[in-house]
Amino acid sequence: MTYKINVVRSERNPLIKPSDVKPSNKYFTVDGVFNCGVCTYNGEYLLLCRVAESVKSHKEDEVKIPIVVNVHGKEIIDIVTFNKKVDTEYDYSDTRSLGIIEKGGARKIAYLTSLSHIRIARSKDGENFKIEDEAFIKPIASQEEWGIEDPRITQIEDTYYISYTSVSRNGAATSLVSTKDFETYERHGVIFAPENKDVTIFPQKINGKYIAFNRPVPYAIGGADMWIAESPDLEHWGKQKHFYGGSNEESWENGRVGGGAVPFLTEKGWVKIYHAADKDDRYCLGAFLLDKNDPSKILAKTSKAILQPEATYEKEGFFGNVVFTCGCLFEEGIVKIYYGAADDKVCRADVKIEDIFNLMEK
Amino acid sequence: MTYKINVVRSERNPLIKPSDVKPSNKYFTVDGVFNCGVCTYNGEYLLLCRVAESVKSHKEDEVKIPIVVNVHGKEIIDIVTFNKKVDTEYDYSDTRSLGIIEKGGARKIAYLTSLSHIRIARSKDGENFKIEDEAFIKPIASQEEWGIEDPRITQIEDTYYISYTSVSRNGAATSLVSTKDFETYERHGVIFAPENKDVTIFPQKINGKYIAFNRPVPYAIGGADMWIAESPDLEHWGKQKHFYGGSNEESWENGRVGGGAVPFLTEKGWVKIYHAADKDDRYCLGAFLLDKNDPSKILAKTSKAILQPEATYEKEGFFGNVVFTCGCLFEEGIVKIYYGAADDKVCRADVKIEDIFNLMEK
Repeated sequence: MTYKINVVRSERNPLIKPSDVKPSNKYFTVDGVFNCGVCTYNGEYLLLCRVAESVKSHKEDEVKIPIVVNVHGKEIIDIVTFNKKVDTEYDYSDTRSLGIIEKGGARKIAYLTSLSHIRIARSKDGENFKIEDEAFIKPIASQEEWGIEDPRITQIEDTYYISYTSVSRNGAATSLVSTKDFETYERHGVIFAPENKDVTIFPQKINGKYIAFNRPVPYAIGGADMWIAESPDLEHWGKQKHFYGGSNEESWENGRVGGGAVPFLTEKGWVKIYHAADKDDRYCLGAFLLDKNDPSKILAKTSKAILQPEATYEKEGFFGNVVFTCGCLFEEGIVKIYYGAADDKVCRADVKIEDIFNLMEK
Repeated sequence: MTYKINVVRSERNPLIKPSDVKPSNKYFTVDGVFNCGVCTYNGEYLLLCRVAESVKSHKEDEVKIPIVVNVHGKEIIDIVTFNKKVDTEYDYSDTRSLGIIEKGGARKIAYLTSLSHIRIARSKDGENFKIEDEAFIKPIASQEEWGIEDPRITQIEDTYYISYTSVSRNGAATSLVSTKDFETYERHGVIFAPENKDVTIFPQKINGKYIAFNRPVPYAIGGADMWIAESPDLEHWGKQKHFYGGSNEESWENGRVGGGAVPFLTEKGWVKIYHAADKDDRYCLGAFLLDKNDPSKILAKTSKAILQPEATYEKEGFFGNVVFTCGCLFEEGIVKIYYGAADDKVCRADVKIEDIFNLMEK
């Protein structure tokens, strides 16, 4: 790499790691705390962290799958046990899931080995965080029996809207909840049918409409590309337009692209930090500059990654070589990027907005 | 099959066949006229037919692909030529498309060999149709460069809303247009991101909201299942709920299910004719009875197919063993099902609503 960008990683990285997190119950082990949404609330920095847990198993051939079920109106976690030597219809080659190999040869996910929920972490200074011992948002069986992942927070006036991935046997969809106090929340249902995640909602109406990026993954035709949609009320979305599908010219984004952080407004226009993976699933972050009045219009974008896995805690972990953001704060010319490192830790890196602009090509 | 259902196929079947349709230009041949939406308008039966055309080629190794492009603000059809011996990165095993075989072994569609548009056919009696020589809805490059498919018509007061599949390199999405006169129409954009088709909108608000079935096809997790969504205005959709994914118990629907016809109201509740394919891609039609006030609630469904490929024109054609409906009319106790036969002809079959109810299991 011959270009320079001054990325200041926090000296306290990783800010939160699995050993800081109390498991939800005695059967669980915490695999990761990562991919957090961020906001400020009541004078504090507040993260909504994805906490991924799996079931401890001491038998080599055994895989235990946690699933949320509703029994007599109560949401509980059921644990289903599979045996690699008995349940031979499944593919166990990826420890993150049980697969089914389809007729055409594609691997479809049959079960996930981990179950995620969302937990709050608070800080006075944005670097020293204390994560709560209890979940803030727990998955419900009817909508997300396999868990909830990757929350993004959009503050609109005094309400915080949280979009997140609802995972079930029927696919990875996007749901919306809102809160005013981070103690209770209201559910607004599934806003995008599966497969669609990496949803980031703009923090204000533009030309009378709310706007969101979303990242559908179609089956037969098309790639994992970013789309942009409109809404009158945040609950119902339409006017979908294809936005961006990565580029084969730059090797860091020739795999897939997606959501990244909630966009923020600068004097030059909206800045949208997004993630891109290469063909080896190495995840980096880039940025778009978008027209203030029509954010489907790309004014410029970084031709190089602004953040890429370099630190040991980014290169090594549950799934190595990943930096993945769900949110950043733009304060006094500095973009404070909160990100998941190697799919198991929460980290922060600061970049001057001027450095991002300098990396952009028209 | 040991059960009986009295299906009366029109003696005039197929009502419209490819040779009845004038090609859009001298380079095109009509592969199929099928999968039509239906309504009554000005005292006539009116069909919106999908007309699929491909480019005539006389060289054995040559495949010509029609694509809509916008040149200086004008939508035109560009023809791209591939040579099987030169362009060896593509898979030519399915004549309907050029494929790319992915790393995992799955076949992703790279191009379609045919391009579809929507044409009007009119009839005084519902059986003798005359199809127009010109397109009613033509694909536009920005939204559907690979064509528009499978229209469904929902009449709400004096407006006819038409949902259809917008196909492009970015996937098969669903768009909405509306018309009051079947001469001009208004575009309402893409209402569901790809992959999502088989959208049928209910003909009235239920509990203050418009309701639609849709059929997303997720990539990594989940099958080609029916979902049900809500809208305040027909343009923006949310509150997605998984509805039905077929059944392995009945072999006629152990492949995939989808939209079928726009639902109609009976004294027992909403009746929804849907399609289901088995693992060999043999397409049949079944029906749901849905709660009048909450159509996400299934009161009963047919355990057997109500229409299945039996006639020669259903078993043989562009893609054999297919009956596929986009619309029906419910008149005087009779369900008049208009359907595509073998992906190339428009047909009609009448079934008494009582016969459908008799085939339903609670």
